[in-house]
This record gives sequence, C-alpha cells and structure tokens, in this order.
Amino acid sequence: DFNNALQEVQPAFGAALFELFSCRVNGMLDCGEKHKHVQETAMTLVEQVRKSDRTALLTCLLEGPPGSGKTALAATIAIESEFPFIKIISAENMIGYSETSKCSLIAKVFEDAYKSPFSIIILDDIERLLEYVNIGARFSNVVLQTILVLLKRLPPKGRKLMVLGTTSMSYVLDSMDLVSAFNVKLGVPNLRPPDMKKVLEGLGVFAKRDLDDVVEALDEEIPIKKLLMLVEMAAQGNQDDDAEDVYAGKRKIDKNYFMECLQDLA
Amino acid sequence: DFNNALQEVQPAFGAALFELFSCRVNGMLDCGEKHKHVQETAMTLVEQVRKSDRTALLTCLLEGPPGSGKTALAATIAIESEFPFIKIISAENMIGYSETSKCSLIAKVFEDAYKSPFSIIILDDIERLLEYVNIGARFSNVVLQTILVLLKRLPPKGRKLMVLGTTSMSYVLDSMDLVSAFNVKLGVPNLRPPDMKKVLEGLGVFAKRDLDDVVEALDEEIPIKKLLMLVEMAAQGNQDDDAEDVYAGKRKIDKNYFMECLQDLA
Amino acid sequence: DFNNALQEVQPAFGAALFELFSCRVNGMLDCGEKHKHVQETAMTLVEQVRKSDRTALLTCLLEGPPGSGKTALAATIAIESEFPFIKIISAENMIGYSETSKCSLIAKVFEDAYKSPFSIIILDDIERLLEYVNIGARFSNVVLQTILVLLKRLPPKGRKLMVLGTTSMSYVLDSMDLVSAFNVKLGVPNLRPPDMKKVLEGLGVFAKRDLDDVVEALDEEIPIKKLLMLVEMAAQGNQDDDAEDVYAGKRKIDKNYFMECLQDLA
Amino acid sequence: DFNNALQEVQPAFGAALFELFSCRVNGMLDCGEKHKHVQETAMTLVEQVRKSDRTALLTCLLEGPPGSGKTALAATIAIESEFPFIKIISAENMIGYSETSKCSLIAKVFEDAYKSPFSIIILDDIERLLEYVNIGARFSNVVLQTILVLLKRLPPKGRKLMVLGTTSMSYVLDSMDLVSAFNVKLGVPNLRPPDMKKVLEGLGVFAKRDLDDVVEALDEEIPIKKLLMLVEMAAQGNQDDDAEDVYAGKRKIDKNYFMECLQDLA
Amino acid sequence: DFNNALQEVQPAFGAALFELFSCRVNGMLDCGEKHKHVQETAMTLVEQVRKSDRTALLTCLLEGPPGSGKTALAATIAIESEFPFIKIISAENMIGYSETSKCSLIAKVFEDAYKSPFSIIILDDIERLLEYVNIGARFSNVVLQTILVLLKRLPPKGRKLMVLGTTSMSYVLDSMDLVSAFNVKLGVPNLRPPDMKKVLEGLGVFAKRDLDDVVEALDEEIPIKKLLMLVEMAAQGNQDDDAEDVYAGKRKIDKNYFMECLQDLA
Amino acid sequence: DFNNALQEVQPAFGAALFELFSCRVNGMLDCGEKHKHVQETAMTLVEQVRKSDRTALLTCLLEGPPGSGKTALAATIAIESEFPFIKIISAENMIGYSETSKCSLIAKVFEDAYKSPFSIIILDDIERLLEYVNIGARFSNVVLQTILVLLKRLPPKGRKLMVLGTTSMSYVLDSMDLVSAFNVKLGVPNLRPPDMKKVLEGLGVFAKRDLDDVVEALDEEIPIKKLLMLVEMAAQGNQDDDAEDVYAGKRKIDKNYFMECLQDLA
Ligand SMILES: Nc1ncnc2c1ncn2[C@@H]1O[C@H](COP(=O)(O)OP(=O)(O)OP(=O)(O)O)[C@@H](O)[C@H]1O
Ligand SMILES: Nc1ncnc2c1ncn2[C@@H]1O[C@H](COP(=O)(O)OP(=O)(O)OP(=O)(O)O)[C@@H](O)[C@H]1O
Ligand SMILES: Nc1ncnc2c1ncn2[C@@H]1O[C@H](COP(=O)(O)OP(=O)(O)OP(=O)(O)O)[C@@H](O)[C@H]1O
Ligand SMILES: Nc1ncnc2c1ncn2[C@@H]1O[C@H](COP(=O)(O)OP(=O)(O)OP(=O)(O)O)[C@@H](O)[C@H]1O
Ligand SMILES: Nc1ncnc2c1ncn2[C@@H]1O[C@H](COP(=O)(O)OP(=O)(O)OP(=O)(O)O)[C@@H](O)[C@H]1O
Ligand SMILES: Nc1ncnc2c1ncn2[C@@H]1O[C@H](COP(=O)(O)OP(=O)(O)OP(=O)(O)O)[C@@H](O)[C@H]1O
Ligand SMILES: [Mg+2]
Ligand SMILES: [Mg+2]
Ligand SMILES: [Mg+2]
Ligand SMILES: [Mg+2]
Ligand SMILES: [Mg+2]
Ligand SMILES: [Mg+2]
Repeated sequence: DFNNALQEVQPAFGAALFELFSCRVNGMLDCGEKHKHVQETAMTLVEQVRKSDRTALLTCLLEGPPGSGKTALAATIAIESEFPFIKIISAENMIGYSETSKCSLIAKVFEDAYKSPFSIIILDDIERLLEYVNIGARFSNVVLQTILVLLKRLPPKGRKLMVLGTTSMSYVLDSMDLVSAFNVKLGVPNLRPPDMKKVLEGLGVFAKRDLDDVVEALDEEIPIKKLLMLVEMAAQGNQDDDAEDVYAGKRKIDKNYFMECLQDLA
Repeated sequence: DFNNALQEVQPAFGAALFELFSCRVNGMLDCGEKHKHVQETAMTLVEQVRKSDRTALLTCLLEGPPGSGKTALAATIAIESEFPFIKIISAENMIGYSETSKCSLIAKVFEDAYKSPFSIIILDDIERLLEYVNIGARFSNVVLQTILVLLKRLPPKGRKLMVLGTTSMSYVLDSMDLVSAFNVKLGVPNLRPPDMKKVLEGLGVFAKRDLDDVVEALDEEIPIKKLLMLVEMAAQGNQDDDAEDVYAGKRKIDKNYFMECLQDLA
Repeated sequence: DFNNALQEVQPAFGAALFELFSCRVNGMLDCGEKHKHVQETAMTLVEQVRKSDRTALLTCLLEGPPGSGKTALAATIAIESEFPFIKIISAENMIGYSETSKCSLIAKVFEDAYKSPFSIIILDDIERLLEYVNIGARFSNVVLQTILVLLKRLPPKGRKLMVLGTTSMSYVLDSMDLVSAFNVKLGVPNLRPPDMKKVLEGLGVFAKRDLDDVVEALDEEIPIKKLLMLVEMAAQGNQDDDAEDVYAGKRKIDKNYFMECLQDLA
Repeated sequence: DFNNALQEVQPAFGAALFELFSCRVNGMLDCGEKHKHVQETAMTLVEQVRKSDRTALLTCLLEGPPGSGKTALAATIAIESEFPFIKIISAENMIGYSETSKCSLIAKVFEDAYKSPFSIIILDDIERLLEYVNIGARFSNVVLQTILVLLKRLPPKGRKLMVLGTTSMSYVLDSMDLVSAFNVKLGVPNLRPPDMKKVLEGLGVFAKRDLDDVVEALDEEIPIKKLLMLVEMAAQGNQDDDAEDVYAGKRKIDKNYFMECLQDLA
Repeated sequence: DFNNALQEVQPAFGAALFELFSCRVNGMLDCGEKHKHVQETAMTLVEQVRKSDRTALLTCLLEGPPGSGKTALAATIAIESEFPFIKIISAENMIGYSETSKCSLIAKVFEDAYKSPFSIIILDDIERLLEYVNIGARFSNVVLQTILVLLKRLPPKGRKLMVLGTTSMSYVLDSMDLVSAFNVKLGVPNLRPPDMKKVLEGLGVFAKRDLDDVVEALDEEIPIKKLLMLVEMAAQGNQDDDAEDVYAGKRKIDKNYFMECLQDLA
Repeated sequence: DFNNALQEVQPAFGAALFELFSCRVNGMLDCGEKHKHVQETAMTLVEQVRKSDRTALLTCLLEGPPGSGKTALAATIAIESEFPFIKIISAENMIGYSETSKCSLIAKVFEDAYKSPFSIIILDDIERLLEYVNIGARFSNVVLQTILVLLKRLPPKGRKLMVLGTTSMSYVLDSMDLVSAFNVKLGVPNLRPPDMKKVLEGLGVFAKRDLDDVVEALDEEIPIKKLLMLVEMAAQGNQDDDAEDVYAGKRKIDKNYFMECLQDLA
C-alpha cells in the first residue's frame, strides 16, 4: 500500500513557491550578524551544488531554539537559489496521514526532485515529521529510517539535490544519528540585544529614543517569534487604537504599554 | 480512512452555543480578582485577533487545578467574543471514537473554523483529549501530534482564529512541548478565602453574620466546583427541607449543618 | 464498530433487580457502626439527587479491602433508592468482550440511564472493568478514558443520575486520577471484633457463651466474606452433620471444630 | 469472534475421565503425611460443596514446586469426588489457540459446568494457561482477567461448582491477585527423606537393606517426578537388563548403578 | 489460521536423514573425552526410550558455547538411534514464517512423531526458534509456550518420543523455565588442548612434530567450528596451493603460515 | 504473504554491477596501509571460497566509523572477485518496504545466489537494514532473525557463497550476536595523517608544498568521506572559480581558503 500511496500523491510544483512565501508572511527583517552569516554560508553551499560536478547531493541542517527563524531562513535560501524544483515537506500538510503515507509522500517528493536538474527540498521541523514526543521518547521509526536513507541516497546521474532540514531538537535528532547524517550543520540563534535593536529599527514601531530602554527590558535573548508577538500586542494598544497605524508609521508604540504587555506574558 | 472520517463528521454550528452554555449551567458568579484578571487579559487577546491584520492565529492556554472553573471561563470568553464561529472540542463528544476519528474530528473543526472570518475553538481538558493517564504515562501520540501541528498552522489569508485550551495537568503537557506551543499561558487558581466569601455572597445562601465563620472552616484554598457541591449538600438539609428555598432566598443554610457536611466529605 | 456495538447491546431493565439481589444472596446482616454510617451517608446523597434541581449528577466511590461487603452495600443502596432505573456494570457480564465492546456496553448503560428521570448505575469492581493487573500495571486505557469522561458528563436537562463505584484498589485508581473524579469517597472497612460479634449474633450459629471466645480467636480484623466462609465450613461439621440444621437454629457450631477450621486455612 | 469460538468448542464429557487418569499413568503411591493431609482437606471441601446449600462456589489452589505431584493430586480428588461433571483445563489442549480462543474455551467449560448439579473444574498449571514467562513478566492479560472473573462468578441457583487450580509459581500468581482470588490455598511439597522411603517401598524396586542408603544419597528434598525418573533410569540397568523385571519384582535395582545415574544427572 | 497452517505443512520424512547428514558434512572426528561421554550418556537415554514401558517421553538438552559441535552431536545421536522417525526442527527451514506458522510447523512435527512407535525430534538452536535477541530480551512468547507445553505432553499410549534440544544460551532459556522443562541436561564443551590435538591428528593435516606447537599457539579453549575454519584457511596456503592436497594427505600445512592466519583472525 | 512477496521480487543481475560502481563514483584512491591490508585479507578469503571444497560459505564483516569507506571497499572486493553473481542488499532499495517484504527480498537474493556456483552478497549498512535506532534500541527483529539464519545456512551442494557485511555500529550488532555470526571481522579505519597525505596526493588538488600544512590542520583522524567533501568545498573557491579546473589539475586549491572551509564546518 506504500506503492499505491506513492501513485496517488500528486506533485505539487505549482503550490511550492506560495507555501514558501507563507513561511515569511511579513517579509524578512535584518536579524543581525549571526543570522546573516548562516544565510551566506548556506548560499555558498547552494553554489557548490549548482556548479560542482562531484556534488550530486548536499545536505544541511539548520538547528536552533523554537521560533528563532529557521523555517523563514530555509524558505529564503530556497527562494533565492532559483532552482527549478523547490519543495517544503512539513507536518502541516500531513495531518491525519498514517506513518506509511508520510513515508510515501516524503519519498515521492524526492523522486520528483530527482527529475529536475537542480532541486531543493526543505524537511521542516524534523521532530514533527517524526511525531516525536519527549515522554517515552516516542516517534515514528518508519519515517526516521526513510529520512536516514534518503539523506544518503545519491540522485541519478546528472541531477543535483540540496536538502535543508530544520529542527529545534538537535539533541534528540543526534541520538537518532540523524544529525551526523547531514553534511553540514548551521546554528540559528535567538536574538541578542544588538539583534533585537536591529529588528525593532527595521519595524520602525518605536520612537528612536525608546529603543534602548525597550531592548534593555527584554531578556538576554529572545526568539524573533516572541519579539514580533510582543510588538503586535503592544501595537494593538489599550482601547480603540489601530495597530496598522503603528506599522504604517503613523503612530509609535507607547513604551510603557509595551512593558505592561511584557509583564502579562512573563 | 482519516479522509472518509473527515467527510462524515458534520459541522455542528447550531449546537455550539448550547454546548457552551451548558458549561456554566447556573450562570457566572464573581470569583474574585484573579479570575477577573484572567478574563480581562483573554478579552484583550480576543480584541487583538479581531483587529490586528498581522495576528491570524492566537493560541492561549488556561491552566489550573481541577474544578477551578477553567471550562466555564473559556466558555464565557468565547460567548462574549461574539465571533461568528465558536466551537468546543471535548472528550465528552468522542466517547468510543478511535484515535484516528478523534484526530479527524479535531481537524474538521479547524477546517470549519478556517471558513469563518473570526473563530474561537476551545480545546477542553486537553489531557482527556489525549487520553492521558499517569500510570505508564500513556496517551495518544496521534492526537498529540495533530494538536501540535494545528496550534501552529496559520489559517488561510483573511481568516482569524483564536484557540483556547484548558488543562489541569500543565506539567504533563509541558513535557510534551504542548505548553510552549501556545502563545499565551494564563493561570486559573482555586478560590482563596476572600474569593470564597465573594462566591457565597453571590449565592446568598448564608446569613451575612455566618459568612466569616463558614469561610474560616474551609481549607486555605478550594476549587469552586467543590464549594458549590458543599453548598448544595448543605442546602438540602437533613430531612424534609427543600434546597430550592435556599437558592430562592426563602431560607438560609444552617451553619452547623454545613460544618457537618464538610466533615463527612473530608 | 463502536457504534454498531452500541446498537446491538440491548437494555436489560428486567434483569436488573435480580442481578442486584444476587449480590446479597443470604440477606443483609448488621455489620456494626461503620458499615451503617456509610450506608446512611449514601442514602443522604440519594435524597440529594432525588430532590435538588442543581444536582443532576452525583458520583460516589465505595472503597475498602477485598470481601469487605462493598458490592452488597452498593446493591442495597440502589435497591432502597427505589429509583426507576438501576443497573450494575460488572466484569462478570463481559467475559470475552473486547475493550471496545466493553466501552460500548458501559456507554450504552449511561445512555439508557439518561432516559430515566432518576437512575443509579453501579460500576462494580472498577479495577476488574479496567482489566487491571499489578505486574506491569497493565489495564485498558480505552475503558479508563470512557469511565473518566462518563463520570463528569452531565445527563440531559431534567434527568438525575447517581453513580456508585466500588473498588478494593483505590490507590491504583488514584494514580489514574479516577478517585478524584468522584464527588464523594466512602470507606467500607473490614469487621472489627465488635462487628464480628454482631454478625455472628445475627447468624445465631454459636451458643451465646461461646461468642467471645470465637471472636477472640479471630484476627484483629477480617473481611465479612472470609468470616462467612469460616462459619460455613464449621457448620458443615466433621461427618454426617447437616449444615442447614445450624442455620435453622437446631444445632450450634462446635467451638473447637471452628478453631480447627480456622487453623487449616491460616 | 469470541462468541463464534464459544459455539464451536464442543463439550468433552466423554473424554474427561480418560484425561484425568492419564495424569496418574502408573497409579498413586503413598507420598507421606503432608500429601495425605492435603488430599484429606481437599476432600472435606468436596463434601462441603456437595452438602452445604450456601456454598455454591468453592475455589482451592494447590501450589508447590515443579513435579511435586500437584496435577496427579488434583486429578485424584476430582475422580474420588464422583461428581457428574469433571473437567481439566490444560494448556496441552490449547496449542496454537489464540488468546481469545483460550478464553472462549475456558468460559465454555464453566458454562458447561453450570449445567450440572455438581462440578469440578481443574485449572492445571495456571502459569501455562496464562502463557507466563519470567523475562519481561509477559503473560496473557485477557486470559488472566477471564480467570479472575470466573473464579468469583456464582453458578446459577441450585448448581454447585468446585474449582481446583494448580501452580508452581504461586509468587507470580500472587502478584496478579490470583492467589487471593481462591477461597483456600493448599501446599503440595517435595518429598522429604521419610516420604522418599515410603515411595520407594511402594515401588518395591530396591532391596529392603538398600533403602536407607539410597535415600541418604538423595538431596534433602526431591520432586516425586525426578525420583521416579531416577528409578526408571536405574531400573533400565547397564546392558541387556529389562526394566520391567524390576517393577514386576523379579529383580532389584543395583544400588551402585543407581548412585551412578544420580551423579550423571546432577 | 493455525489449523489451516497445520493442514498445509506436509510431513517431510524423506528429507529427514539428508538434513541430519548435512549437519556433519565432513564426517565426525574424535573430539576427546568429554564429547564422547556426552554421546554415550545420550545413547543410554535412547536405550531407555526404546526399552522402558514407563518412559514414553524423554527430553534432553545439549548446551554449550557457539560452534562447539552441539548440532553435529544431536544429528549423530539421532542417526545412530535408528528410530523410524527422526526430524530436525531448525530456524533454517522457517525463514519468513510468522510466529503462528512456526508454532504450527513445530506442533505438526510432534503430531507426526506421535504416529511412529519410536521418534526423535531435534529442536535445534532453540534461541533461534524463539527469535531471541539480547537487546530488550525480545523473543516469540507464542513459540516458547508451544515448546514448553510440547516438552511435557505425553505421546499417545504405546508411542515413544525423545526430544533433543540444542542451545548456546542456556542462561537465557533458564530464565524462561525452559531448561528445567527438560529431563536431562548435558554440556558440550569447547575443545581443550588434548582435544584439539585429537582433532588435528584425526585430520592429519599437520606434520606430527608440529602438532604440539600448533596446539600451544591456540587459546586455552576453542570451538571446533573455529578450529576447522582456521585449518581450512591455512590449508589454502598463500598462492597456488591446493587445499585438497592437504586433506588428501599429499601435503602438510606450513606451521608458520597457520600462525599468520591465527593472527589475522584474532 | 511472505511467499507472495518472494515471487514478486525479480532477480536483478543486470543492475548489479552498475549499483556496485555507483558506490565508488569517482574511482578508488590509495588510502594507506590499513585499508590496503583489509582489502588483501578479503581477497584471500575470496580465493578460499573459489578454491576450497570445504568452504561452501564464508562470511566477513567490514566494520568501522561512518564514512570510512566500508561500502566502497566491499564493492571493490566484489567487483574484483569476478564471481558470476554479485549483489548488494541495501536499505536504499527498500524504502517503504514492510519488515516482511524486506525479509522476503533478502531471502530472495540468497536463493538467487544459491543458483550460481560462486556468489558474493553485500549486506550494506546492516544497522540500516535492521532499521536500528539508538533511542529505545528499536529495530526489526524479523529482519535480524532472517539475517542471523541466512548467515549460517549452507548453500546447496556444489555452490559457494561469500557474504560481505558492512556496519558502523559493530557494538550494537555485537549485542545482537550478529558480529559473532560472521566467520571473519575486519576493521576499516578513519584516515590518519599519512593516509590523508596519500589521498590528497592521489587527488593532486594541492600544491606539493602545502600538503603538510593542510594535513596538520586536520584532526588526528578523519573519515575519507569528510575529507573529500572538504576538498570539494575548497575546490569550489569563493566566487567564479570552477571546481573542475582543480580536479583537472589546471589550478590548485588555495590553502587558506581550505582552512576557512574547515573552520565553517567545525
Ligand atoms: N528575518 C525575519 N524577518 C521577519 N520575520 C521573521 C524573520 N525570521 C522569522 N520571522 C518570523 O518569525 C516567526 C518565527 O519564524 P520561523 O517560523 O521561521 O521560526 P522557527 O525557528 O522555524 O520556529 P519553530 O521552532 O516554531 O519552527 C514567523 O512568523 C516568521 O515569519
Ligand atoms: N464563575 C463561576 N460562577 C459559577 N459557577 C462556576 C463558575 N466557574 C465555574 N463554575 C461551576 O463550577 C463547576 C466547575 O467549573 P469548571 O467545569 O469550569 O471547572 P474546570 O476547572 O473546567 O474543572 P475540570 O478541571 O474538571 O475541567 C461547574 O459546575 C461550573 O459550572
Ligand atoms: N451486610 C452483609 N450481610 C450479609 N452478607 C453480606 C453482607 N455484606 C456482604 N455480605 C456477603 O459477603 C460476601 C462478600 O461481600 P461483597 O461481595 O459485597 O464484598 P466486596 O467487598 O464487594 O468483595 P470484593 O472485594 O471481592 O468485590 C458476599 O457473599 C456477600 O453476600
Ligand atoms: N502419588 C503419586 N504416586 C505415583 N506417581 C505420582 C504421584 N504423584 C505424582 N506422580 C507422578 O509424578 C509425575 C509428576 O506428577 P505431576 O505431574 O502431578 O506433578 P506436578 O506437580 O503437577 O508437576 P508440574 O509442576 O510439572 O505440573 C507424574 O508422572 C505423576 O504421574
Ligand atoms: N565431531 C566433529 N567432527 C567433525 N566435525 C565436527 C564435529 N563436531 C562439529 N563439527 C563441525 O563443526 C562445525 C560446528 O558444529 P555444529 O554446527 O554442530 O556446532 P554447534 O555447537 O551446533 O554450533 P552453533 O552454536 O552455531 O549452533 C560444523 O561444521 C560441524 O560439521
Ligand atoms: N578508496 C577510496 N577512494 C576514493 N573514494 C573513496 C574511497 N573510499 C571511499 N570513497 C568515497 O568516500 C565516500 C564514503 O565512502 P563509503 O560510502 O564507502 O563509506 P562508508 O564507510 O560505507 O560510509 P557509511 O558509514 O556512511 O556507510 C564515498 O563517496 C566513496 O565513494
Ligand atoms: Mg519552523
Ligand atoms: Mg474543565
Ligand atoms: Mg465486590
Ligand atoms: Mg502439573
Ligand atoms: Mg547448532
Ligand atoms: Mg556504507
């Protein structure tokens, strides 16, 4: 029934770019030096795949804390590669699938990729694809084994494939020998104070003079996801304010109100 | 068969409000400052979902001891949002369902919600949805993974979704990475003495002069559920009394008889 | 197939009373103060269910050592309630059932109960319904989850339901959060010397002058089940005696022969 | 499919006695005081079942080391009861049965027994019926639960049932609450020196003068099964001897050859 | 489906002897005193089965380190018994069988044996029949239980059966109560220096004067399997030598080359 | 369904050589003394199989760290044997197969091999065939048992079979008794400094004068796989360089750029 499943799953080239853009809904902001270095290294690898005859397969793992921007980064790399085949494999598209169907879909994407001269496959949130849970360390070994094999299987002659994995549980993947199965590992960190400042400047939602106070009020490090959510809440204001005014630059966020929101969520 | 199941499950908009009201059978009483603060914070989040273009999905977990009023609170928030789509997902409606059917029903509710501009979904008693039991830490990983993914999947463009979870086992959910999957966590506490007094005043079942003695006889903290059950027993009286007279204000509960009931259940 | 099962299981109102009486084959004896207090408290709860509009559901657990008389007590309470619907759910009637069929039957009994204005359901020997075994702490989680949910689900408007559970493993049920799912817990103890004397007097099988010696020969506490079995053996006598003569009052048990039986079983 | 199985299993009254006799192929020997006392106590219980109106069900467990003669004793008790229904439930007759079919067969035997006024059921080698193995403490919980329930279920009015269990793993059964499910427990011990002498005298295979030396050469205690096997080997003799001559009394076993056999098997 | 399987499995009397001989491809060599004693004891048991009317079933376990010659020994005993029915049950003939089919085949062989007046069944490499693996101590309990029962089930009247088991994991079998299920246990050891010398003399592949040096170069004990493999490698020689010349006695093995081979495999 | 599977799997002789060559895409380089010794020893074993009448089956395990060149070595040995049947069994060709189908395919390859006078089967990456994962030490016992049996089953008379296994988890295989199931074990090590120098010389991508500095910059030992990947990255150069120029000898790798790449991947 694996083979049947393989037939039934249709390629979804058309939807691919759309899916990738939806991982970066509000565009990409400058997140500081470390994020930039990761992105540049990854683009060098893209070039290696594009040019080197001896690199038929190159696998790269982006790992870092939850909400640090791994998926957005992977999507950006894939988009900028301009490879003819790019595809994201995510648990979001497999709700209700059996383990076998998941394997089937994953294998199908690789088979599709092998037909294109240059391809990028994103294995997003690998712990979720594996249905991993800490209690009892449960997960789908069938999916794991499929991924372990696919990460090492060479594409047919003349085809080039780059695989980008993302995970916020690299210690778990490591104990499954899944980290060492990747050629390259790159760490995507949380934002440090200078990075936070860059992001907030990029958004332009605070008055210049408030920026340092705001950053100081935050933790030593914070995931970009949480920072954006905080800004969102504060932009909302107490009563009849319109958040869009803030993003449109018509109004700045009240520093004190931001501090209150911060407290509420702590 | 997941997809079949998805077809078969019919939306139940009509029944929704009725179900929510049945979570608060005898209306809502004033439970003191902390309950009030939780409710207000949640209503702010409701506003954020209603107004902010950048908040397509907002997930909030109400956690607290058994019987502390979490479900009643979630129902109240949902009702007061006046969102066009509100739905409670509860184990009560899934007796005898297989794990797959449960996932199917849950996914179906989310799919239905995506069709409405503004929706609230209550995931009630998440440990029960997961069929969790402490012995052996057993639970349905299939349901867990489905919830983990749905809590992060963005609704389609232009749709807004708020998810309200309730649990009295947040430490368990935490070890499943399910707590951190929510944007916001709010604690619903047991009643402290001043809160108990407020609730008893609200009910009007004791003579004013007895209130302090009654509260003093109770534990340092008590779930509202247990307090209401105690009042119920005491209102019943020993023999031929009619409990309704008490609630109608025609008769007050005998303080001593209340103390006896308290002892019997200790 | 759960739903099919639900159809196939036919209500069994007719057999109900018969089943309950068979739990107390030889009538009820006076077992002393504690048993009496438990019975009286339970009858007060029955009255609350009968009268209070706000008590649609009341759940009560009878727990105590094996053979202490829990099932007989639950049956007595149910019979004396004179509620129109009374039903015992026991593993005895489910030999060879699959876990799903058990859930189905249990749910079916509750559905039937919801149709009667006043109902009592006895969940007898809950550890047996759960197929619990200490080695490996195995049990049916499906049955457990079904019971957990049913113990909290309110009957439809205007219907009243009392659930009486029995168990001799309350520590196990507690670690499944099944004890706290009951509104009220009542302990059914083994017989202490004064209680034993009462039971033996009630049976009238010993000469008055022997009673104290007999009680003294017994352990500090003893389940009523074991006491009745001992009497039975001793009533039998060594050879051609007829036990019925003893119960009919024609003959008394020989104190010394009773002591011998006691030794044999120790 | 349990119910189907129930239909298919045919009662086997005819074969019953034959099966029981095959448990004691070479007749019963005097095994000393303890064996005798166990047998007598068991026969008293048989009488209680036969005569007492209040004893509808009596369950008795014979437990002791492997090969100590439990099955032979149970068979003897059943045969001597002269009850119209006697039946042995043994794993030997269930090779290749699924767990469900085993339950079905076991339940079927009880159902058959309920139709007879007086019945004895032997549950032989209960750990084997349960498919118990020490590694991982694996066993069939389905069979266990079926037995636990059947051991407590009363036969219909007017029917009398005695259940005789045997086991050499009572500590295992105890941790399954299966020992306490029996009304009476009786221990069948290995042979001690005086018992060995009785058995060897009964067989008449040694010269009188050799008996004490032979017994002294044996361990402090020995299962009757092993003693009989040793005698068998020694009776065989080294070369062209005929073992039957020994049993027929024509020849005695050579003491020294017996000692050699003993050494070989140690 | 067990019964179906039972039908389908055809008896394989014809192939039996062939299979046994293939366990001793190159004939039997003298392996020293201990091997000889084991073989003699086993042949005495064969005689007991043949002659004694009271020994309908005799079970004997050959246990020893891997490659020590257990299977070859069992085959030799069976062949020399000249019993009309001899059969080896080995995992080699059950590749791809389900657990149930394995049980079915095993039971079938016993059923076939019961039809012959004298039979020998070899249960070869019992840990392999059980699919045992040390990690997690996994194995097929269904197969284990089948074997446990068959080892104790008496053949029909007038039939004689000897069962020869082999294992190199007797400590594992012991923790399954499988060792004590055999009437007799015999240990097949590795070769000690004098035994090695006997084997090498028997092969005649070394010059007489080299024998002691060769034996001294070997470990304190060695399985015959490993010794034969070493000889084989050394007989091969470095280049264009023909190993058959060595076995045919035309050439002797170069002692030094043998030492090199020994080092390579250490 | 195992047998059905057996039918359906078609032999794939034609593809065999192609598959083996794809394990050594860019030809074989001199990897130093230890690799050479392993290869020579293996070729001696090939000769033994070819020539010795008594060696019908010879099994050899190549074990060493990940990426150390085991598969390439096994492929080379098989190719150089010039045996008429050579076949690699690898998880790559079994994605989506059930455990049973895997066993079926593996058994099928052995059956095919038995038809050829001389055969080599490569069991590549045995831990992957077993679907082994460290967490919970999960693996397919069905596949394991099949391999354990096949590694010991003799081919039919006149057929010769060599089995080459590869693994980077010999400690795991050892705890499954899978290592001792092989006749011979050979270790394939990582590259040490002199070996690295040999490989880099063989590639000719560095200027002679840089070689020692480059080797010194590397770790004490490194898998050949990682060394080749590093060279590949460095050959790529920063911008518009063409890696092929390097391999073609037109350009040498910039030592400093190589050091940078080394740092990026550390
Ligand atoms: N550079 C960026 N500029 C703007 N928004 C960003 C950037 N990086 C991430 N985001 C946004 O932050 C949120 C979190 O990012 P993302 O989902 O990529 O993180 P993640 O590390 O993949 O999280 P998770 O651990 O949950 O998978 C998303 O809404 C994303 O659109
Ligand atoms: N503010 C309130 N006013 C009146 N009744 C309330 C209030 N809050 C809760 N209740 C009542 O108290 C009982 C317990 O409340 P609820 O079921 O919401 O608690 P919970 O925390 O969800 O309990 P559980 O842990 O069992 O899920 C219900 O009968 C509910 O109707
Ligand atoms: N008050 C009583 N008067 C007379 N007989 C009684 C009384 N209570 C219990 N019995 C009898 O004692 C025996 C054990 O009682 P019962 O089965 O109710 O105990 P239990 O606590 O439910 O036991 P278990 O733990 O096995 O479920 C039964 O035969 C019952 O009829
Ligand atoms: N009293 C006796 N007289 C003669 N033979 C006996 C006697 N008791 C047992 N035996 C014989 O001894 C052997 C072992 O007895 P039995 O099978 O009853 O022991 P067991 O305790 O049931 O063993 P197991 O633990 O294996 O079930 C049998 O062959 C039986 O016929
Ligand atoms: N006495 C002997 N003379 C000649 N060859 C022998 C002798 N005993 C064993 N062999 C050979 O040695 C090898 C190993 O013997 P065998 O398979 O019987 O050992 P084993 O103990 O059963 O091994 P395993 O533990 O793998 O099952 C076989 O090739 C067998 O033919
Ligand atoms: N001697 C060699 N000359 C040239 N390339 C080699 C040599 N040995 C290995 N390689 C190459 O190095 C890479 C790794 O080799 P291979 O796959 O054989 O290693 P492995 O030990 O089997 O790895 P794994 O542990 O992942 O199975 C392959 O690309 C292979 O082609
Ligand atoms: Mg992500
Ligand atoms: Mg709730
Ligand atoms: Mg009871
Ligand atoms: Mg027995
Ligand atoms: Mg063997
Ligand atoms: Mg490899």
